[in-house]
Amino acid sequence: MSFSPVDSLEVPLHKVNISDAFWLEYQRLVKDVVVPYQWKALNDEVADAEPSHAIENFRIAAGQSDGEFYGMVFQDSDVAKWLEAVGYLLAKTPDPELEETADRVIELVGAVQQPDGYLNTYFTVKEPQQRWTNLAECHELYCAGHLIEAGVAYAQATGKTRLLEIVCKLADHIGDVFGPGEKQLHGYPGHPEIELALMRLYEETGETRYLELTRYFVEQRGVQPHFYDIEYEKRGRTSHWNTYGPAWMVKDKAYSQAHLPVALQTTAIGHAVRFVYLYAGVAHLARLSQDQEKREVCQRLWENMTQRQMYITGSIGSQSSGEAFSSDYDLPNDTAYTETCASIGLMMFANRMLQLDADSRYGDVMERALYNTVLAGMALDGKHFFYVNPLEVHPKSIPFNHIYDHVKPVRQRWFGCACCPPNIARLLASLGHYIYTQRPDGVDINLYIGSDVEAMIGGKPLRLKQSGGYPWAENVLIEVDTGEPLDATLALRLPDWCASPQVTLNGKPLDVAARTSRGYLRLTQEWQKGDRIEMTLPMPVTRVKGNALLRHVAGKVAVQRGPLIYCLEQADNGSELHNICLPQHAQFRLIAGSGIFAGKTLLQTQGKRRTSNHAEQQPLYRFNPATEEAVPQTMTFVPYFTWANRGEGEMRVWVDEA
Amino acid sequence: MSFSPVDSLEVPLHKVNISDAFWLEYQRLVKDVVVPYQWKALNDEVADAEPSHAIENFRIAAGQSDGEFYGMVFQDSDVAKWLEAVGYLLAKTPDPELEETADRVIELVGAVQQPDGYLNTYFTVKEPQQRWTNLAECHELYCAGHLIEAGVAYAQATGKTRLLEIVCKLADHIGDVFGPGEKQLHGYPGHPEIELALMRLYEETGETRYLELTRYFVEQRGVQPHFYDIEYEKRGRTSHWNTYGPAWMVKDKAYSQAHLPVALQTTAIGHAVRFVYLYAGVAHLARLSQDQEKREVCQRLWENMTQRQMYITGSIGSQSSGEAFSSDYDLPNDTAYTETCASIGLMMFANRMLQLDADSRYGDVMERALYNTVLAGMALDGKHFFYVNPLEVHPKSIPFNHIYDHVKPVRQRWFGCACCPPNIARLLASLGHYIYTQRPDGVDINLYIGSDVEAMIGGKPLRLKQSGGYPWAENVLIEVDTGEPLDATLALRLPDWCASPQVTLNGKPLDVAARTSRGYLRLTQEWQKGDRIEMTLPMPVTRVKGNALLRHVAGKVAVQRGPLIYCLEQADNGSELHNICLPQHAQFRLIAGSGIFAGKTLLQTQGKRRTSNHAEQQPLYRFNPATEEAVPQTMTFVPYFTWANRGEGEMRVWVDEA
Repeated sequence: MSFSPVDSLEVPLHKVNISDAFWLEYQRLVKDVVVPYQWKALNDEVADAEPSHAIENFRIAAGQSDGEFYGMVFQDSDVAKWLEAVGYLLAKTPDPELEETADRVIELVGAVQQPDGYLNTYFTVKEPQQRWTNLAECHELYCAGHLIEAGVAYAQATGKTRLLEIVCKLADHIGDVFGPGEKQLHGYPGHPEIELALMRLYEETGETRYLELTRYFVEQRGVQPHFYDIEYEKRGRTSHWNTYGPAWMVKDKAYSQAHLPVALQTTAIGHAVRFVYLYAGVAHLARLSQDQEKREVCQRLWENMTQRQMYITGSIGSQSSGEAFSSDYDLPNDTAYTETCASIGLMMFANRMLQLDADSRYGDVMERALYNTVLAGMALDGKHFFYVNPLEVHPKSIPFNHIYDHVKPVRQRWFGCACCPPNIARLLASLGHYIYTQRPDGVDINLYIGSDVEAMIGGKPLRLKQSGGYPWAENVLIEVDTGEPLDATLALRLPDWCASPQVTLNGKPLDVAARTSRGYLRLTQEWQKGDRIEMTLPMPVTRVKGNALLRHVAGKVAVQRGPLIYCLEQADNGSELHNICLPQHAQFRLIAGSGIFAGKTLLQTQGKRRTSNHAEQQPLYRFNPATEEAVPQTMTFVPYFTWANRGEGEMRVWVDEA
Repeated sequence: MSFSPVDSLEVPLHKVNISDAFWLEYQRLVKDVVVPYQWKALNDEVADAEPSHAIENFRIAAGQSDGEFYGMVFQDSDVAKWLEAVGYLLAKTPDPELEETADRVIELVGAVQQPDGYLNTYFTVKEPQQRWTNLAECHELYCAGHLIEAGVAYAQATGKTRLLEIVCKLADHIGDVFGPGEKQLHGYPGHPEIELALMRLYEETGETRYLELTRYFVEQRGVQPHFYDIEYEKRGRTSHWNTYGPAWMVKDKAYSQAHLPVALQTTAIGHAVRFVYLYAGVAHLARLSQDQEKREVCQRLWENMTQRQMYITGSIGSQSSGEAFSSDYDLPNDTAYTETCASIGLMMFANRMLQLDADSRYGDVMERALYNTVLAGMALDGKHFFYVNPLEVHPKSIPFNHIYDHVKPVRQRWFGCACCPPNIARLLASLGHYIYTQRPDGVDINLYIGSDVEAMIGGKPLRLKQSGGYPWAENVLIEVDTGEPLDATLALRLPDWCASPQVTLNGKPLDVAARTSRGYLRLTQEWQKGDRIEMTLPMPVTRVKGNALLRHVAGKVAVQRGPLIYCLEQADNGSELHNICLPQHAQFRLIAGSGIFAGKTLLQTQGKRRTSNHAEQQPLYRFNPATEEAVPQTMTFVPYFTWANRGEGEMRVWVDEA
């Protein structure tokens, strides 16, 4: 097989070397802790964690082991995400032992592939006659998508095409099965993912049939008569999931964003992860097919999602039922679902939107999701994970009120439905894809992460070295290194939280406002070795207020510094966080953290606490009480992403303003 | 049959004539609208309402009609509650036509009774072999309890003992089936109710076997090995309810307050209606059996319920899952369940506690439940009902967020599970039972409801005439009328909301504090015709604050005047009630209502509204916004019990204090 890749706007990972302290630690965690830990988990070698059985499923499907399939219908995807993460790691640092392990897994995957290209352990082991009979519920295309992503990543990293060939054969099989032909299925996935994967496969291989297959899946979605109903009748009304009643996933088509054709959708709806995965694929398709209508759909839905339905932590999905969006301006803090995977998908969608259009609104959200919800999804030890990321937690109440059934007050070791941990691993391992966008005429700098990058501009290399103290300090330095002088545009995102960014070029202040469009400072000129861009992104502690229509945060304030949202924890501030108020003009002090906060900046200020002495001896209600007394209290805020690393306790992001 | 009633502390209804405008209107509604409407509903003659089929079930069970049982396993109880309400109505006003209808229903009920006394249409029609095999789930004893209450009420009202005889035969059958004997079942109801009913039957008949049966049910509860498990195994692990998984009602024993013996229970737990029904019966039993241990259990649980888990509206049950309590100080306003029936049961429990001990803590809660949640359960037209009574409603969000699945923004005509409407009817029709407690040595006045009463004190009549402007005005006049001078104690509840009650006796001011114990002003003396007690219960608008541990109302205030909690509605105040703030020192004006508020007092004050101009065009979050602007806004508060009588709109009880 030989491929002719399409020029990608992603810089290949081996050309991005992350070098700053903050992110090196995460790179280390992923490599030394998360990926090895997940390998153990996939092999059921983690004590006290729910079993995965994912590797064993492959062995059974390959005929190398006896036994029954175990786990979710999408269990294969955990192996795929692990392989993808390994690919990203190997792209940066050779690791023969890890590579050998991965190669063995790839051979195992290959052994499961059927002669016609089909590849899925659930159906191969459990229901070989039922392939492709339940698109709405059974995740075959979703698992295929993840495997395709792994194949692309592994080929890019190692140059080895074995997995890429496997997934091309799988994709070609899917292309045979699905399509407008009389003997083809006119279906599309219940859980989108393959759309964005096929677009990556298209970029990697240059094979337009993968782009066309993406287009088919996207345009077929929501067409009437509805495919989910047709296949439901055809298979005799059987249903895989009955959580909310028989065949609910078939019936609740908005859950899968299949209630309407994509072109007619106007609001972020249904399962949040499905939503962002789908539109990441649509945005990629829109760009590479120059499809203006799809581009506008993406923009419209992006606006609804981020300006009506997103939490300040860059998380989405305000209800546990259906792990779903609810409606405009309905963002409860304590019952939120706000899945880690949804914020990862949000970053993927954001990155595709940035590639479509370097507008800081996309980069701002991508950064917000990354530094807050995505990082919060993993403990500082790299071994415990949050699936659900509320903005307010009262642990004492959780076990007794069903509205909190989905909420965990501390991170768990692994999940029966283990989508989030490997998703965090692959996201962090591929972070280089998000920092820069390389264009034919220049480079966009989306994230301020210390790193060296070599981008290709019109066939010529442009090397940038980014350094600074982000996210803790306001200085960013970008040094240019180019063999010969090069005409190019460097576009630097100016973060939404930064009121007055200052930039100098070779020591000369720039008129930032004049040279900024759509939130990016755009510097078009001839660049040469030694050019230095120095940015100052002042990071005073910022108070964030919600839109007047956000009833859950009325009268409350969130605290942000740089890209980081902060929160109050019981460990620093005592219990009853609801009684602590932030005075309107309180001044903050920056505190250098220690212990697990070493290298991190905490915030302190003088707040007030409504007195609650002997509250348990007081009546439940008081009539005409004397004016409430408040006592001074030092308020200590820690970065939201670090919460719950010290055991169970109350936490809240939105604090009463006094 | 001849009976020797036990002296009751309840004044018979025909000796209490309610005469004030506020309550006469409700008496009229119950008589002219609710009971006739419910009669139609029971006969499936209400268009657009869910069918009841309850009367038809009796016809089928009596062999007078063909067909299948339809409805809940406790459908019979709706007929019983209707009969009980009719009994209360007939006690006060003869109505030959209504009485004839009721007599026909009673004959129908009698025709369903089996030769051994068994009486239940569900089991007779659907599962005749399965009688008494599923106490945990199937409500046979609950339905029997309601029928017993109806039998007592109807006999007291009409002197006709036909239904009383039927229910005695039923109770005797139950006494044969249940008990400590080897061939008896050692069980007790999954849904308590029969306990309080049997105590009423004991009072009415003087037959101590009914008290003993109550004691058996109460003391058997929660004993190990657990009866629910034993019967579950015996019937082959079948389960009637699977809402939260197979046999959840069998397994979740706290749901039925059967997780522990009553003597060991320490917290209000599980299904709120079951809880208050059970402990109403236990309190009654404790009093009539002089059982100090049970009395202390009741006191302990009362304290937990009312000082840790009760809403300011006198409602209980903070979660929809299991229609249940959650935990101490966990009282969310918008996701509350707060079932109307639970507040009715709370009144029953309170009344029994008052009979045990005239302590105003019980009367205060009884009044709070009555004037707020119970009245709110029914529309001003008497034809629409709330099952769930939240303290905050945002109708736009309800259809899209599952945490609101149980919430209706406006009252419904009838329910498939129709426990609440007939429960309201019987409560309002028997209100006379709650106003006064008649004791051997005097009368307690628990509620200030304009009425004439004749109590028997040591065999001699003491007549009181109560009048005044309650709940709108502060004056209460109690005129004594007694044939000959009579030594007695009149005990007048001093409401918790009233800071400085003033009382004169025949024009002479009394030292209220000195003569008050446990919240009742106790006047012991010789009373004679013409004695006048004039109370002034000043009703300034009162601000209510929550205990410091109530996180959902931190920084918020509720508004009460007299016994009435007020609320903001969108109809008067516009949308976004979360943006309206009550200044700390705002003065209120009383406003005479008009239209549906005619005769009612509304409250107005000058508040502030956080500006939200063009909020939909504003960003979702703002960084370091200018100090928030607020514009003056007239705030209009309406009594909570009147909310949602003008269509759908936002409502909130707890308002931000500015």
